[in-house]
Amino acid sequence: MEVNLNNDPAIIEGCTVPVRVNRKTRSNPTVVNVNSVRIGSVPVAIIAGPCAVESYEQLIETARKVKKAGAVLLRGGAFKPRSSPYNFQGLGVEGIKMLADVRKATGLPFVTEVMDTRMVEFVAEHADMLQVGSRNMHNYPLLKEVGKTKKPVLLKRGMMATIEEFLLSAEYILNQGNEQVVLCERGIRTFETTTRNTLDLSAVPVLKHLTHLPVIVDPSHGTGHSWMVPAMAKASVAAGADGLIMEVHYKPEEALCDGFQSLNPDEFTGLMSDLKKIARAIDRDIL
Amino acid sequence: MEVNLNNDPAIIEGCTVPVRVNRKTRSNPTVVNVNSVRIGSVPVAIIAGPCAVESYEQLIETARKVKKAGAVLLRGGAFKPRSSPYNFQGLGVEGIKMLADVRKATGLPFVTEVMDTRMVEFVAEHADMLQVGSRNMHNYPLLKEVGKTKKPVLLKRGMMATIEEFLLSAEYILNQGNEQVVLCERGIRTFETTTRNTLDLSAVPVLKHLTHLPVIVDPSHGTGHSWMVPAMAKASVAAGADGLIMEVHYKPEEALCDGFQSLNPDEFTGLMSDLKKIARAIDRDIL
Amino acid sequence: MEVNLNNDPAIIEGCTVPVRVNRKTRSNPTVVNVNSVRIGSVPVAIIAGPCAVESYEQLIETARKVKKAGAVLLRGGAFKPRSSPYNFQGLGVEGIKMLADVRKATGLPFVTEVMDTRMVEFVAEHADMLQVGSRNMHNYPLLKEVGKTKKPVLLKRGMMATIEEFLLSAEYILNQGNEQVVLCERGIRTFETTTRNTLDLSAVPVLKHLTHLPVIVDPSHGTGHSWMVPAMAKASVAAGADGLIMEVHYKPEEALCDGFQSLNPDEFTGLMSDLKKIARAIDRDIL
Amino acid sequence: MEVNLNNDPAIIEGCTVPVRVNRKTRSNPTVVNVNSVRIGSVPVAIIAGPCAVESYEQLIETARKVKKAGAVLLRGGAFKPRSSPYNFQGLGVEGIKMLADVRKATGLPFVTEVMDTRMVEFVAEHADMLQVGSRNMHNYPLLKEVGKTKKPVLLKRGMMATIEEFLLSAEYILNQGNEQVVLCERGIRTFETTTRNTLDLSAVPVLKHLTHLPVIVDPSHGTGHSWMVPAMAKASVAAGADGLIMEVHYKPEEALCDGFQSLNPDEFTGLMSDLKKIARAIDRDIL
Repeated sequence: MEVNLNNDPAIIEGCTVPVRVNRKTRSNPTVVNVNSVRIGSVPVAIIAGPCAVESYEQLIETARKVKKAGAVLLRGGAFKPRSSPYNFQGLGVEGIKMLADVRKATGLPFVTEVMDTRMVEFVAEHADMLQVGSRNMHNYPLLKEVGKTKKPVLLKRGMMATIEEFLLSAEYILNQGNEQVVLCERGIRTFETTTRNTLDLSAVPVLKHLTHLPVIVDPSHGTGHSWMVPAMAKASVAAGADGLIMEVHYKPEEALCDGFQSLNPDEFTGLMSDLKKIARAIDRDIL
Repeated sequence: MEVNLNNDPAIIEGCTVPVRVNRKTRSNPTVVNVNSVRIGSVPVAIIAGPCAVESYEQLIETARKVKKAGAVLLRGGAFKPRSSPYNFQGLGVEGIKMLADVRKATGLPFVTEVMDTRMVEFVAEHADMLQVGSRNMHNYPLLKEVGKTKKPVLLKRGMMATIEEFLLSAEYILNQGNEQVVLCERGIRTFETTTRNTLDLSAVPVLKHLTHLPVIVDPSHGTGHSWMVPAMAKASVAAGADGLIMEVHYKPEEALCDGFQSLNPDEFTGLMSDLKKIARAIDRDIL
Repeated sequence: MEVNLNNDPAIIEGCTVPVRVNRKTRSNPTVVNVNSVRIGSVPVAIIAGPCAVESYEQLIETARKVKKAGAVLLRGGAFKPRSSPYNFQGLGVEGIKMLADVRKATGLPFVTEVMDTRMVEFVAEHADMLQVGSRNMHNYPLLKEVGKTKKPVLLKRGMMATIEEFLLSAEYILNQGNEQVVLCERGIRTFETTTRNTLDLSAVPVLKHLTHLPVIVDPSHGTGHSWMVPAMAKASVAAGADGLIMEVHYKPEEALCDGFQSLNPDEFTGLMSDLKKIARAIDRDIL
Repeated sequence: MEVNLNNDPAIIEGCTVPVRVNRKTRSNPTVVNVNSVRIGSVPVAIIAGPCAVESYEQLIETARKVKKAGAVLLRGGAFKPRSSPYNFQGLGVEGIKMLADVRKATGLPFVTEVMDTRMVEFVAEHADMLQVGSRNMHNYPLLKEVGKTKKPVLLKRGMMATIEEFLLSAEYILNQGNEQVVLCERGIRTFETTTRNTLDLSAVPVLKHLTHLPVIVDPSHGTGHSWMVPAMAKASVAAGADGLIMEVHYKPEEALCDGFQSLNPDEFTGLMSDLKKIARAIDRDIL
């Protein structure tokens, strides 16, 4: 079916929103269900866990602590897209199995990244939610492949993607029949160097205005420094985000990947308490 | 006195903070006093008013309404830096006088922009606070001139300036003997087009970390669309901003300048009520 | 083999160059051989052809004309990475076959994009050179897969990639044993809107300084307007590029993809004559 | 006189060109005359000299060498806009006098920056051409003030200004009655860190397309590294620039300002010989 984008009036001048993700095509916001977790409803969903799965011990220890503090979904990378071929590339299939084991032990469903079209079927079989990372937002064969699965998808904004391109990438997934897509702002590339990226929080109101899909924020990648994460996590909730995804590591100083931007369990627990207050101030909640 | 920046250890790698604005040089945060208004203390200071002074009626009507809703300082441009020579350039000296008249009528002190070294003395005589706008953050003769006055200064981040450059511009002012400087994040230029600028809210925790000066946010210029302002105003307070500066116009649709990003008085009043809840959730307040 | 990047002294402060692409690891520049075409030698190699393969007629007509004007390699996309799922996605396998047929008829070898790890083997079997496009510069599984083939690779800089990341992506390919890599500057994303991208021509001297790999420029994507292509093509040759890749379509106004940035055959022929003069002025040549 | 910009059809979609600088308002390109030097005519005008005037010896030695190599105009800053208040701020009035003395001794006219409206009259009295620097492109009172003089103006593009804003700033000058304006591309701010700025050479064909004013390029600030200057200077001429402005210092390693991007006289002399070949290849010349 050919869709005529020209008939779809832009809601913001200069930004055309494709038909399936367009808020006008649906009267209610989409709620994405990851097992029993609902993203896009009144409660703000908190996703937490290590950047990369490193060992069973690291994963289970971290998972238990983030669950106790109120996280409803575990994150952890098994396939890691690293700028350098000489950096730790992730545990791969073995990492996926550890995530499944930890789910069994803790009851926490997990989201994990898939980077290669050849691995989508395998990851979809084991994970509760598939992540398409920032570097793959423009990887259209991958978007089509995750669109063919029945799994919810966490789609991260490309680090230099416009909002319009972000929505078009989501459209690739919906166009294959999978409407369970969560959009994630994770910072864009600018000239500023004190932060790893510039977290574009205005993407939250803009996306909520343009699309019916839920919108979450990643303040860990968005700032690149663990000490900036609490301020930006609170700001994200106040801005109206439907959830947060944050890096937490049981021993950040020993992390094989991105330790400098990971909270330790105590910091995470303290932050959760603050986030609940913000959520209530805007008539939402955190479970 | 020559100051050796090399002896000043960077607090964030790659960002050298000059000596006078550096948080390490002062045990307590600076509080800037604009008449009876204190910026940088527990209460979050709300500055509001029209983009440009257009008429006495426009100004007094807007001022009364923002004061009633809780604003403590009136903003209004008399000298307007406009990209095009054919756009409304402001009422100039006459506008400054209207601001003074409205202060007399309402009791609201005012902040207004000065762009030309030749006008600093005149504006400092009448205004309660001098604004150096985004386009003049790199205008060093102007920074030196406002540094020689005794008036508090609202320094806006250049739309293209790094945090390091922003702090160096503030240093120019402090270096002349004027330490009453408030820093204002107002959005930076990126590739994104759905917003007028990209509001870099991470500048709030970064600046609070690096300097003792108060930090406020301008969500009106930072987004360029009035309907995005409430989300970003709430996010700014949650991120720890010491204040907000927002454009409010009694009739935005008739504004000679930036009406699309101005709240009307009712929207502003509603927003203030939400902001108070956020402020309390983080143990601050709004008067 | 683990390679210690820390032992590799940065040649430009702040930019670490990995070992295999590093100019210091090889005394002579790499020459990439695409059949009889040598890229990285004295002659400036001209690659031309349509954005997308649309039909046999379109391809053969365009190929004959660019060959006659001096192009040594044909470009043409069969698999097209398009921002919208509703745009023409390319002829796929059928397009690859047309390219092979046109090679047979004209003698022109061809370069074509591969986007999916599952298609690398097939495309490598038919094409003379594999292109990894801008959107896939960070697609590490794809880089590894093309690194395992024996085919020369044209690697385009990501539209958001730093020079350092660009070199790291090339390192992924070399690290798999394939050293026949040509780097292509194609414009980066900035705030400027009169051009589709900002062609970063300084990447030419920077890359020639840092790596032994050949460097070419794509002024068609780099500008996004056919009338800007001649100026930037000439500038690229003067800056020291080892080649150019340009979009030429026998009927740009009927193109299914990027017609606005395609030269017609007459424009291309005229440009080639100018380019030869520039090449000679810097002691190079165009065959 | 009110000018209706809406009646002025944009030549590039999304870029409105104001009336006085618009190429459509004049049948012939503007030639700017700086004493006997013509900028915007067939010969490519070469402007060279130190970043800052440091001493009479430094200036006269450098001036003699650049003149001998073919420069027609001397550059040198007396008032320096420096990011830090603790950096060398220039010799001020004394520097202007040295420039005038060196002009007398060598016959070379000079261009120098003015930053403060209060100094325009003084600088205009002594200099042959007034420079408005990148940091002051948005300084409208300054633009108006130089517009009131009869002196030719060298207007540098703001480091994060769009082409449209650049033309609007030029319009401010022309609108005051001064039509002797040369536009200078000097690099824009992007995420790339191997260069000080990203030299946007596509600004040359774009500006030549949109306006009748001459366009020159500053490859010294545009790259920030002296070894990149020759490649980008050659590229600029090939792209159609009407001139170049380059930093040359008789002893770059001792420069008080920007020595890392200054050519020494031998490098400059060698480059001039290469530039003449490029100029001839495009049917222009260098005197």
